[in-house]
Amino acid sequence: MKVGIIMGSKSDLPVMQDAADILLILGVEFEITVVSAHRTPERMFQYAKTASERGIGVIVAGAGGAAHLPGMVASITHLPVIGVPIKSSNSIDGWDSILSILQMPNGIPVATVALNAAKNAGILAAQILALSNSELTKRLKSFKEELKLKVEESARELELSFNLK
Amino acid sequence: MKVGIIMGSKSDLPVMQDAADILLILGVEFEITVVSAHRTPERMFQYAKTASERGIGVIVAGAGGAAHLPGMVASITHLPVIGVPIKSSNSIDGWDSILSILQMPNGIPVATVALNAAKNAGILAAQILALSNSELTKRLKSFKEELKLKVEESARELELSFNLK
Amino acid sequence: MKVGIIMGSKSDLPVMQDAADILLILGVEFEITVVSAHRTPERMFQYAKTASERGIGVIVAGAGGAAHLPGMVASITHLPVIGVPIKSSNSIDGWDSILSILQMPNGIPVATVALNAAKNAGILAAQILALSNSELTKRLKSFKEELKLKVEESARELELSFNLK
Amino acid sequence: MKVGIIMGSKSDLPVMQDAADILLILGVEFEITVVSAHRTPERMFQYAKTASERGIGVIVAGAGGAAHLPGMVASITHLPVIGVPIKSSNSIDGWDSILSILQMPNGIPVATVALNAAKNAGILAAQILALSNSELTKRLKSFKEELKLKVEESARELELSFNLK
Amino acid sequence: MKVGIIMGSKSDLPVMQDAADILLILGVEFEITVVSAHRTPERMFQYAKTASERGIGVIVAGAGGAAHLPGMVASITHLPVIGVPIKSSNSIDGWDSILSILQMPNGIPVATVALNAAKNAGILAAQILALSNSELTKRLKSFKEELKLKVEESARELELSFNLK
Amino acid sequence: MKVGIIMGSKSDLPVMQDAADILLILGVEFEITVVSAHRTPERMFQYAKTASERGIGVIVAGAGGAAHLPGMVASITHLPVIGVPIKSSNSIDGWDSILSILQMPNGIPVATVALNAAKNAGILAAQILALSNSELTKRLKSFKEELKLKVEESARELELSFNLK
Amino acid sequence: MKVGIIMGSKSDLPVMQDAADILLILGVEFEITVVSAHRTPERMFQYAKTASERGIGVIVAGAGGAAHLPGMVASITHLPVIGVPIKSSNSIDGWDSILSILQMPNGIPVATVALNAAKNAGILAAQILALSNSELTKRLKSFKEELKLKVEESARELELSFNLK
Amino acid sequence: MKVGIIMGSKSDLPVMQDAADILLILGVEFEITVVSAHRTPERMFQYAKTASERGIGVIVAGAGGAAHLPGMVASITHLPVIGVPIKSSNSIDGWDSILSILQMPNGIPVATVALNAAKNAGILAAQILALSNSELTKRLKSFKEELKLKVEESARELELSFNLK
Repeated sequence: MKVGIIMGSKSDLPVMQDAADILLILGVEFEITVVSAHRTPERMFQYAKTASERGIGVIVAGAGGAAHLPGMVASITHLPVIGVPIKSSNSIDGWDSILSILQMPNGIPVATVALNAAKNAGILAAQILALSNSELTKRLKSFKEELKLKVEESARELELSFNLK
Repeated sequence: MKVGIIMGSKSDLPVMQDAADILLILGVEFEITVVSAHRTPERMFQYAKTASERGIGVIVAGAGGAAHLPGMVASITHLPVIGVPIKSSNSIDGWDSILSILQMPNGIPVATVALNAAKNAGILAAQILALSNSELTKRLKSFKEELKLKVEESARELELSFNLK
Repeated sequence: MKVGIIMGSKSDLPVMQDAADILLILGVEFEITVVSAHRTPERMFQYAKTASERGIGVIVAGAGGAAHLPGMVASITHLPVIGVPIKSSNSIDGWDSILSILQMPNGIPVATVALNAAKNAGILAAQILALSNSELTKRLKSFKEELKLKVEESARELELSFNLK
Repeated sequence: MKVGIIMGSKSDLPVMQDAADILLILGVEFEITVVSAHRTPERMFQYAKTASERGIGVIVAGAGGAAHLPGMVASITHLPVIGVPIKSSNSIDGWDSILSILQMPNGIPVATVALNAAKNAGILAAQILALSNSELTKRLKSFKEELKLKVEESARELELSFNLK
Repeated sequence: MKVGIIMGSKSDLPVMQDAADILLILGVEFEITVVSAHRTPERMFQYAKTASERGIGVIVAGAGGAAHLPGMVASITHLPVIGVPIKSSNSIDGWDSILSILQMPNGIPVATVALNAAKNAGILAAQILALSNSELTKRLKSFKEELKLKVEESARELELSFNLK
Repeated sequence: MKVGIIMGSKSDLPVMQDAADILLILGVEFEITVVSAHRTPERMFQYAKTASERGIGVIVAGAGGAAHLPGMVASITHLPVIGVPIKSSNSIDGWDSILSILQMPNGIPVATVALNAAKNAGILAAQILALSNSELTKRLKSFKEELKLKVEESARELELSFNLK
Repeated sequence: MKVGIIMGSKSDLPVMQDAADILLILGVEFEITVVSAHRTPERMFQYAKTASERGIGVIVAGAGGAAHLPGMVASITHLPVIGVPIKSSNSIDGWDSILSILQMPNGIPVATVALNAAKNAGILAAQILALSNSELTKRLKSFKEELKLKVEESARELELSFNLK
Repeated sequence: MKVGIIMGSKSDLPVMQDAADILLILGVEFEITVVSAHRTPERMFQYAKTASERGIGVIVAGAGGAAHLPGMVASITHLPVIGVPIKSSNSIDGWDSILSILQMPNGIPVATVALNAAKNAGILAAQILALSNSELTKRLKSFKEELKLKVEESARELELSFNLK
């Protein structure tokens, strides 16, 4: 199973690229494209309807402002959908993006991550796929271990710089 | 031309009833039903796609929380769509409803009215249809005149009650 | 019928220009000027009072901060009024502009669009006028079609750029 | 000189009554009525235009939601205008009322008091009129002294109740 | 694999019960208990550390106020963690609960659902487990179908009630 | 009577200068200094206590963040106090400055103006002093007239620039 | 050393009582009274100025709305001051109380606790005094242990109730 | 006793440095390092568990976004913990940082200071330690005196610059 990354506009790519990058690092296959809920509603329907049969297991959808893409895709597919609220140029500090993705009605969840956190969306998608992929689980554990090592290293550097003063 | 009133859930009726009531008063024909963007996406598509040919001129759509109904309908039809943000039980004081209806991207406007203001949505729909209906224009002017008279009457009452003290 | 575009200050022109531009593209006649609710209240009254008889069918009014222009014009005319909340220099991230335009009392609606979304205000005005103008309806449908084509093209580009990697 | 108290709707009276009450206590003359910016714009114009010549020195104006009354009155008269944001039934927790009264553009100030704080609006009006009224100044000083005495008394009570335990 | 449902306090049960209920309906095994990040930090560590080996595939964690439980559990386990922001008695309208669950730093995602939306958390958990469970996938599709049927039925009722008038 | 302009820090001068400038233009005498509620509480007490006897009629006080200066000065003097919320470097987009000046308890009003609106504070101070100064009233009316003329001029320019296209 | 508990109004006692109660439980001496920054500024000065010499080590100050008491007391004394933002009747959902206590300028800290969290203010005061009181440290450790035991007990109850179903 | 300064990421150092700097000026010993609640949860446990026995009396913890470090450290140690909300790159204007540090549940207080106010956190830590250190008390009084002198000097400069005009 692979991850389907979609975004409401090509201008969202600088944010959504992070999802692709971390999936590459974690060795998870993905496809990526632009699907606009508002400008290409039929394309969106088609995408969501056929995602599962095309081998997609998790969908990562990013959008900004009145962000309807993640929720509408979740309304059409039975796959888990991860929503990335994007602080786009037409967003009010990201509040509209967050609330219109997060506050889905009962029955149709969207797994929302932090504002602009496409990297975390990618990690979450990998965590989901790892439930039936022990190799991926190992890579996720290594990734977590590396996060720890980096903090410990920066801690040592910081302590050293203060002791030298 | 008539007005199409839709709402995301039957539980929105106590709010959306106001739109129907004012259209009755103003003598504007309407149809009313439940269309859920998230639970009946295909019904929503069908509704929006065929609205114009069914004689609808303006759509009034109410929804709460991550309210995608007005924006999605606007993405499918070329008719003007009026959005009513509803402070439903799953809404955070109405902020999510407002922002997910109001903050539409360029290209796909939704004419948003105040929180729970279905009455104003009905009046706005009537104002739009009145542009090619001089009788309706007269009724709207009378309605405005009555608003004025009621304020003037309550002013007299208030003044009187203070002068009597 | 034409569209009347007004703004509270000439400094709002960079935002409100978008309304004029899209109306030009859609072939809708408009007039444009500055009307300040607070600094020229009588001019505002005069403008709203005579708009209909001057051939205006829809008014697009933009203002920022404690934005009273759209609501006050709507209180005087029976025409539909579209409000554009502007994130002007004296606005708190646009929240004041949005709330003082959107939250109109029952009886006096303002069709509010997204923050700074003068382009959407122009499109909405055209959608309203198109109800009695089948040529304009055709142009609006073409406009929607172009939005779709642009997304599809950017989708192809994005997919290609990832496949080339 | 007297104070002119106005409110956008008779339903605002339970809040605005506090302004009348404190002015009675402080011995300041006032008139009180309903003036709606949105439903009686001409009445509002008339009120503001003639306030000074009718002997009014300060205007206290209360309104809720998209509250335009205080700002519009201030745009027409040269008198100081005190705005009372009201948390009315159509207000979003008072934020719309506050922002649409407070955030006036340069040139047209409104002296805004706290949400629902009509009592403070009355005191402020009295403080303004007291600048040329030494009797009123004395009464204001007494009022301040009483506030102090009440706190000191409640402090003693509280201390006593804890010492008795 | 089963779902682990945890909550910061037993007082969160009225909200979190919804997660248990929907999992029962969908035929997904779960365990449920109270784990407080702040009052039982070691219990929390133990829970998260051993969740995977105890057969848990997805963790649903609900908490209110400065809600650290979902994020801290996610920091310890490699399993996907779903966070339910709860509008508890010590929460400011839910904003603190939402932001302290949603805004996780890069590296440690929490799949956040809407305020109090434990039902959606349960559905999302089921969607995740369904990726390797075709029976569960069928039940999820039936559940979605039922949602649709209920809306269609309520639509018919609403239409009928208006036509009868 | 003159105006007393104070600010919590010399770094507030770029904002508060506007109050001085407009008072100069309107021919109103003023004194200006720095008074910090938090760093010089005794100076603040002294300032407020003696303001009236030093010939001050209105105090304009600007502060940012947890802005206590206007409210504390108002608690000590019986003079009207105008508060200017400043978006200083330690302020959260101005919300803290606004709320800690505006939301005064009953008994102690502060006449709050818009964020950073020291110019409006100056105008409001002049409006208050003008109640017993007919020359100042004339200058205020001229000032209002000029505001109107400037808008009308910019309107003509804008109309012309569009007609020339 | 004892704790000084103060509040802006006797109406704050239902919240502030929690601070007294927990200090009683933890065996920490305290005095309690009403001190209003706005209505008794001189009393406030006196209180803060003499607190240290009266044997007070930590001050717990609660207030609502434009809450100046904690910050002003902190400006006068060198003792640590703990601020309790209170959601009083004149507060906007507590935001004003929080921001006007929390956002103190550099130089004058206030240790702010959660909205209405007078109990936590009491615990924090005890933690501070415990630094030179090993008996109190023991009691604080017991208190923490009890919190843990209560959670563990409620966890067992919850687990049992689900297993019995 | 010394102060323990920790931060969630080395990128928080530009803010947290202020705490170290003021402690140096006030002559208070401190240690400083990086501890991430989310990336090094065990290191965080270890740090909090052993802080007291390592001679730490007060912990100053800074973090941004879903900031769990201060609250989690407070849950493990009985020492007073001061939290510094940081407006980091992944924070929504600091609101998430503030709320996830401030809104701790009853039983586990965090002494929260203003956004980015690490300097105030350092001063507060010194005020706490000064309760059993009379030399430090003297230095804190001098520090307060200097704050006052600087304001008075800037006041003289400002007054002079206006008198010279």
